[in-house]
Amino acid sequence: MSYYSPSIEKLIESFEKLPSIGNKTAVRLAFYILNASKGETEEFIKSIQDAKKNLKFCSKCYNISDTNPCEICSNTKRDQTKICVVEDVKDVVAIEKIHEYKGLYHVLHGSISPMDGIGPDDIRIKELLARLIGEKVKEVILATNPKVEGEATAMYISKLVKPMGIKVTRLAHGIPIGGDLEYTDEFTLGKALEGRTEL
Amino acid sequence: MSYYSPSIEKLIESFEKLPSIGNKTAVRLAFYILNASKGETEEFIKSIQDAKKNLKFCSKCYNISDTNPCEICSNTKRDQTKICVVEDVKDVVAIEKIHEYKGLYHVLHGSISPMDGIGPDDIRIKELLARLIGEKVKEVILATNPKVEGEATAMYISKLVKPMGIKVTRLAHGIPIGGDLEYTDEFTLGKALEGRTEL
Repeated sequence: MSYYSPSIEKLIESFEKLPSIGNKTAVRLAFYILNASKGETEEFIKSIQDAKKNLKFCSKCYNISDTNPCEICSNTKRDQTKICVVEDVKDVVAIEKIHEYKGLYHVLHGSISPMDGIGPDDIRIKELLARLIGEKVKEVILATNPKVEGEATAMYISKLVKPMGIKVTRLAHGIPIGGDLEYTDEFTLGKALEGRTEL
Repeated sequence: MSYYSPSIEKLIESFEKLPSIGNKTAVRLAFYILNASKGETEEFIKSIQDAKKNLKFCSKCYNISDTNPCEICSNTKRDQTKICVVEDVKDVVAIEKIHEYKGLYHVLHGSISPMDGIGPDDIRIKELLARLIGEKVKEVILATNPKVEGEATAMYISKLVKPMGIKVTRLAHGIPIGGDLEYTDEFTLGKALEGRTEL
């Protein structure tokens, strides 16, 4: 049963559909919108409409961008010989934030997951291979997530790319900085031991 | 520095302006919108526009509603001799949910708070008094919050309404159902003792 007027109820339901928004937060957001000025509301709506209208996939790396090719692909100062392969657009941002990597990216938009019915043809692997033929790439850095699906995807791509004479690397696994040996799970600890470096 | 394309960045900023939404949630919401279908996005925008367009204050009780007078004020089955005075529209819903109260409401839209520069004239007290003269009200239930401001507001209204020969009541204070004596604060416990009832 609904206790709010139909238009408020509809607005609350709209917010509830968003991820990680429960009923209480949805009510708070709905009332924020109701109390917001006409200008603020219009700006909010415009940002949604603009994003939906302007954003497209970069036809080279499949990152989401206002331009095609994206800002990264069209930046000639970036190292064109390296491609970092990630699962998601948000992973591009995560790597950009460390300010260390100056190469290009390739966004797969998912990972191989037979359990979910996602095979190699469902993610942007073909497009990656096409880029490797066309461009002068010397290294492919596999930065898929260190989970079963991400590892499987990395192995799959590795097997296809290595025969092309291109160096294939994977992000290191180990104990996070500030982490605690005692609370590190055994798989991570095993990887950390396996990948130990000489001082 | 921004790592996302301008339109995504703008959308993330829009979500960040909403209450209780931090950067991580804003990013999640923005990407949800980007991945949503055209229909879903349009429905979301429409619910905001409709709410802003359709909702108005009830000219009797100042509840927010699609209609004026609101559904409650225009429901002749409700007890017209009782008015429950609350601070906020959300409080109306809180009381409606218990399915016990069948009278009318009056929404003050705030409470007297000299610290915040809010005096009796800044909330809908005058409008409440006007209703008491016009209508056949026999009881005013003060359901403002049990905080300093709510108590002050209740006292203020009580002093004005009592001389009109109308019964003025206040919601009971005490230990919440399922509460624990040990963890109940001393003020609540004091109120619970003061308001003890005979069995």
